[in-house]
Amino acid sequence: MSDAARNNVAASAGARAGMSDRFLRACRRQPVDRTPLWIMRQAGRYLPEYRALRERASFLELCRTPELAVEASLMPLRRFDLDAAIIFSDIFVPVAAMGAAVSFEPGPTLAHPVRTRDDVRALRVPAMAETVPFVGQAVSMLAHELGGRVPVIGFCGAPFTLAAYLVEGRSGGGFEQIQSLMFRDPAMLRELLDTLADAMADYLRFQIDSGAEAVQIFDTWAGLLGPEDYRAFALPAVRRVLDRLGEPRVPVIYFALAAPHLIDLAAGSGADVLGVCWRVPLDQARRRLGRNVAIQGNLHPHALLAGPEVTRARALEVLESAGPEPGHILNLGHGILPSTPIASVEALVEVVRNRAPAPKRAEAAEPV
Amino acid sequence: MSDAARNNVAASAGARAGMSDRFLRACRRQPVDRTPLWIMRQAGRYLPEYRALRERASFLELCRTPELAVEASLMPLRRFDLDAAIIFSDIFVPVAAMGAAVSFEPGPTLAHPVRTRDDVRALRVPAMAETVPFVGQAVSMLAHELGGRVPVIGFCGAPFTLAAYLVEGRSGGGFEQIQSLMFRDPAMLRELLDTLADAMADYLRFQIDSGAEAVQIFDTWAGLLGPEDYRAFALPAVRRVLDRLGEPRVPVIYFALAAPHLIDLAAGSGADVLGVCWRVPLDQARRRLGRNVAIQGNLHPHALLAGPEVTRARALEVLESAGPEPGHILNLGHGILPSTPIASVEALVEVVRNRAPAPKRAEAAEPV
Repeated sequence: MSDAARNNVAASAGARAGMSDRFLRACRRQPVDRTPLWIMRQAGRYLPEYRALRERASFLELCRTPELAVEASLMPLRRFDLDAAIIFSDIFVPVAAMGAAVSFEPGPTLAHPVRTRDDVRALRVPAMAETVPFVGQAVSMLAHELGGRVPVIGFCGAPFTLAAYLVEGRSGGGFEQIQSLMFRDPAMLRELLDTLADAMADYLRFQIDSGAEAVQIFDTWAGLLGPEDYRAFALPAVRRVLDRLGEPRVPVIYFALAAPHLIDLAAGSGADVLGVCWRVPLDQARRRLGRNVAIQGNLHPHALLAGPEVTRARALEVLESAGPEPGHILNLGHGILPSTPIASVEALVEVVRNRAPAPKRAEAAEPV
Repeated sequence: MSDAARNNVAASAGARAGMSDRFLRACRRQPVDRTPLWIMRQAGRYLPEYRALRERASFLELCRTPELAVEASLMPLRRFDLDAAIIFSDIFVPVAAMGAAVSFEPGPTLAHPVRTRDDVRALRVPAMAETVPFVGQAVSMLAHELGGRVPVIGFCGAPFTLAAYLVEGRSGGGFEQIQSLMFRDPAMLRELLDTLADAMADYLRFQIDSGAEAVQIFDTWAGLLGPEDYRAFALPAVRRVLDRLGEPRVPVIYFALAAPHLIDLAAGSGADVLGVCWRVPLDQARRRLGRNVAIQGNLHPHALLAGPEVTRARALEVLESAGPEPGHILNLGHGILPSTPIASVEALVEVVRNRAPAPKRAEAAEPV
């Protein structure tokens, strides 16, 4: 990062002194001065400076070069008053370290899909500090650059979602292979999920030890499953990640996309925060989940395409729906779209910054 | 159809005299001797004779040639003891008649996606008997061939699902256009949905007048929507189809795929039967929907790929889950997959044929 850019971040962050733990407090369902905001894929193609960076380096080069990953991670924070930074990386970075030959075309593509027990057993649970040291370096550098002003979020893919790609060999196409495997050879699928869970636990631990103050587990394809199969495969795999992760724990966000039928079960994953997409209104999510878990979401990413006015109106609806209880992190219901206008993101930031919350309890108004 | 084939169907159907209204009775939540069964996409690529037919004719030729459409529709009934025939066609047949230039590559592809109000207004609600006479002829021929032994199901796409394709221009890819349109220009989307609803009502009426004894409305993409947007767009469009369809009514099945969060709302569509995919266990569906609607589903299509034994076990679970109350039609939770073994379908047929239902009430055992 250039000195100018560094000063820029330092200056804009300095102007917001004291905001650092708003996101972490909300993860723990503690009162906050205002709802924290971050955006899935906030370092992405909707940013012209990110597109310019991608002209200089491939996606994988960004992931594997700490300076570039940090540069990308900081881009959205230079523009917008966001409450967390997420490390720029990809859920397949640690999977490649497990011995799977992954390329991006642009979705993850496996040279040899995992189809047999031997394929499963060929995957290893690697020492992350040795196989993907650059991830730890990037997290550590990012935390250092931010100087505690906002926390760094680490992340990984959930075992079922990673398995879906590994077994299919590519993204898209209905994931026929993993859904067949579930019926044909459930024991093999469990073995694959166990291996992935162990590796992901170690990968999250590596990021936490490097400076991540929260982590998110992305379960993009869990919604394919009915409740019984979710309970049999995807859910225990997430639990295994958290069990092996152990202590000390940072807040864990678990986000199963397009899984409105699974959120009650997902609340038993052990995660502190459940990501919710727009299919479940937040007031309904609150009713279904009770107070034992915080929620993150769920502005429709397409609302932002319609410009600042629609973004503002819909964001206010989300905040209303979440209600005044502590434990809500504003985010989109899925990653921000490449065609999103910058002005819409600015409007979103303004909404949380300007909205005076209606404190439910006295301590909701305390400075944090 | 050849005479030999005709005799074959007549003979095998003759052996099952008296089964004709099992499916229709279940649609109306009346007691039946056993659960009726049909299979979405039952005339499809998993059948070798269908693949052979497709070597002689393109997909669109099959749709547009009554003799061939009837031939395809009858194929599954020659092999399996199914309780309904569905006319071989495609949801885009009537959309092409509205003036949209659709091709199949193999998903529906629009030469000119619908992007402006003028595009919407260029779509017409055509006289179906003049623009797609071959559909009526095929339904009529199929009903004649079956001689009332099992009913013919007609079908159409739901307005929202058709709009998703029309606006996007192609299938797949996340349907960014329709979801953006919903926020950018809801009035234009409503106008498009209204036009589609009117055309689909006329199209269903045309099929009913030609001999269809039940119809299914496929809402494959409704599950993209959150409840509020579903209530604002997709649901009123389905209601408009049913309002315009009017009387005399045959049973209407409404199937929204991957929409576990919408079934309570979908129960207010006015349909007699709700199709349910595997994401909602049928006992839960029964609890949520009450007794005012029958349910159809929901065996996981991938279970059949694992062979007859798994198919049998899973089908029994579905029947158990549906319970003894009248008003269940066994089907898959989505179309049968091309790689499905014939033996799995045979096992599925055996399960319903051999299972002695536990009659809840005396009349459940009456002959039908």
